[in-house]
Amino acid sequence: MSYKENYPSKLLEEAVDAISSLPGVGRRSALRLALHLLKQPAENVHHFTSAIDNLRDEVKYCRQCRMISDDDICSICSDKSRDANTICVVETVRDVMSIENTGQYRGVYHVLGGIISPINGVGPSDLTIRELTCRVAALSTEADVEVILALSGDVEGETTSFYIYRQLAQYNVRVSTLARGLGFGDDLEYADELTLGRSIINRQIFKP
Amino acid sequence: MSYKENYPSKLLEEAVDAISSLPGVGRRSALRLALHLLKQPAENVHHFTSAIDNLRDEVKYCRQCRMISDDDICSICSDKSRDANTICVVETVRDVMSIENTGQYRGVYHVLGGIISPINGVGPSDLTIRELTCRVAALSTEADVEVILALSGDVEGETTSFYIYRQLAQYNVRVSTLARGLGFGDDLEYADELTLGRSIINRQIFKP
Repeated sequence: MSYKENYPSKLLEEAVDAISSLPGVGRRSALRLALHLLKQPAENVHHFTSAIDNLRDEVKYCRQCRMISDDDICSICSDKSRDANTICVVETVRDVMSIENTGQYRGVYHVLGGIISPINGVGPSDLTIRELTCRVAALSTEADVEVILALSGDVEGETTSFYIYRQLAQYNVRVSTLARGLGFGDDLEYADELTLGRSIINRQIFKP
Repeated sequence: MSYKENYPSKLLEEAVDAISSLPGVGRRSALRLALHLLKQPAENVHHFTSAIDNLRDEVKYCRQCRMISDDDICSICSDKSRDANTICVVETVRDVMSIENTGQYRGVYHVLGGIISPINGVGPSDLTIRELTCRVAALSTEADVEVILALSGDVEGETTSFYIYRQLAQYNVRVSTLARGLGFGDDLEYADELTLGRSIINRQIFKP
């Protein structure tokens, strides 16, 4: 079904073009959203668009961990109660938010801004790996420094983890990675073989 | 899962608030879209937001049929090849686009801008019914004028159709409505009883 040819207004068509450029939004949904916005008071629409413009124009990234922040140093890095000697390395801003939501982590972060992926033309120099090694170098005089590699478990994630591991080998730091195994509540029957296999190899002492 | 408490930035939170105000967009999708926009070049984001602002600020509605239009009179009303004596009454702009997409209609339209719905506080005066009767009054000196009520088949649609029908009773116009029955390719087994019953009552001469 091509709505494309039949837009009653150039302005509407341009708005639909713009909205449908968002990931996961088709032209039909974009039309629905454009007509919804058209029915709202003008000030609401301006509030909507300026919130997006402000985000794009004024957002900062923490000078230390590259997390989205309103200040030069983010609220996590500047929190004195957190353990600055434990650095959790993640791919994206969203990963930080996910780990923060667990409430289980009291260290700090380092956002890579992506993952090494030759197929997408992303190499180590496109990520914040150099900044990470500088941070670790500065910390490595301290007694007990840990870097947690919290990257995804696919080939690109493993490659990136290994690359970082080698970069950090010269420093006096422990490098760890996330536990992998069956999810809580998972059924053995439906687990994939690789995950189940690793769960057996990396089995843990039973603590009831 | 409440992401709400843990936004790393006020700007991000405000953008997510704005995006999630769209119908059918939850806070999780809104966050995904906000982070997507953050990764785009600033000029793309400004193009996106100004397309929406322009639509809201500059869109016009056809003086005759109330369709969205770039000019005072829309392209359909100003098209001399179309039959100005046949007016198809629809609820929304989207209905016009849907009927236009069929390529089966050569008359003009009248967009009500809604439907009579006491429960939502929408009365006849909130719609463009008065404008419709004026249009019909002006046309009714002509020989063959038809008003097609193309409203939805629910109670509110039927109510609105009946209200308009009574308003137009004093004029010399034919009032028709959309054919209702089984959809093309529909299976009898799965049709609801009301639709199937009406399909039998309103059966048509078989034209192979």
